[in-house]
Amino acid sequence: MDERKGKPSPGSPESAVPRAVVSRLSLYLRELQHLVNDGNATTNSTQLGTLLGFTDAQVRKDLANFGQFGYPGVGYRCEELIAAIKKILGTDRFWPVAMVGLGNLGRALLRYRGFGEQGFRIAATFDVDAEKIGNTVEGVEVFPLDRLAEVVAAKGIRLAIVAVPAASAQAVADSLVAAGVEGVLNFAPVTLALPERVSRVGVDLAIELEQLSFAVVNRPENP
Amino acid sequence: MDERKGKPSPGSPESAVPRAVVSRLSLYLRELQHLVNDGNATTNSTQLGTLLGFTDAQVRKDLANFGQFGYPGVGYRCEELIAAIKKILGTDRFWPVAMVGLGNLGRALLRYRGFGEQGFRIAATFDVDAEKIGNTVEGVEVFPLDRLAEVVAAKGIRLAIVAVPAASAQAVADSLVAAGVEGVLNFAPVTLALPERVSRVGVDLAIELEQLSFAVVNRPENP
Repeated sequence: MDERKGKPSPGSPESAVPRAVVSRLSLYLRELQHLVNDGNATTNSTQLGTLLGFTDAQVRKDLANFGQFGYPGVGYRCEELIAAIKKILGTDRFWPVAMVGLGNLGRALLRYRGFGEQGFRIAATFDVDAEKIGNTVEGVEVFPLDRLAEVVAAKGIRLAIVAVPAASAQAVADSLVAAGVEGVLNFAPVTLALPERVSRVGVDLAIELEQLSFAVVNRPENP
Repeated sequence: MDERKGKPSPGSPESAVPRAVVSRLSLYLRELQHLVNDGNATTNSTQLGTLLGFTDAQVRKDLANFGQFGYPGVGYRCEELIAAIKKILGTDRFWPVAMVGLGNLGRALLRYRGFGEQGFRIAATFDVDAEKIGNTVEGVEVFPLDRLAEVVAAKGIRLAIVAVPAASAQAVADSLVAAGVEGVLNFAPVTLALPERVSRVGVDLAIELEQLSFAVVNRPENP
């Protein structure tokens, strides 16, 4: 997909902290959640760095963007740092999310457990297919697109996932903006024109494969 | 999904260049491809930085990890830089990719145009469902999992996408390793145990939503 992953909206306040740092907060959060599940109460920048392949200095520098979290002689208290990172990321609250488009990708995303684990729940889905509208898929009701504004308001939805074909994506984005949605995660292979006040993240899955081909061709045995 | 996005295999040579830098190479590549499509023959670090929300110093520093690409008084020649980045990423060649799992996500990925645009083609799919095996989906043949090694060898496949449920993912990964696959892109919500010689990238789509919630809660009008 075409939209720039990691592109901050120009002039928006989040550009003060590089998007890559924010992305690493998510990685720290996952590792901390694993550590707690494994029974660890504390950790430190060396352990977190080792788990993620970063230097301990990088870990400390990343976290220092957001405050002072360590204790001398203790390191980080896992639950406390989890709570702090969730607050920074805004996932210390529950986010109902709208999903537009119930094709294969939309259905796969509805089943995706990782969203719920981090505080996101797809609260309503929207499609133009009369055969889908009115049904529930994975327990989530399918609404017609023309009820977007009404449902978004009723359910307090601020974030939306666009999983429609490229040709429909901009029209869907315009409807989401008109409905008052504040952030759009776009899976459609186009760059969406959105007003400055709406945040957007594009998903480019080919980047992941490029990371993989880079790793494979840069192994010493694969010149 | 649980696996650490951006986690380099410890001790592997690609850890010399931060994964975040490699990820930005993909972003530069996309922008350069847009610029060429728009008829631009040259660009520079300021333009690339502006398009992506980076400083021009960041662009120059990122590219300097891999060589000297600019010309005094000219900047970057787009086609030349595209070719150089593709060579670095390993996408100056064609990569046939195996996909295991033909549920909703697998089908959505088969239709995903972004892979083909960057030199990746899903060359074979694998499933355990007897009703799917032997068919073609989106023009790609569906093989039984027990023919993995044979098909991987016959088609020269080195990369694989895992799009199976969590409970099957490790067994699938073991089969991929046994078949000689060198890199795994994992969509299953588990951390795969893989030998050091196999590169892996995990996809954690909740990270994208966390980027979005961060952007929304850090706007001045949303304290």
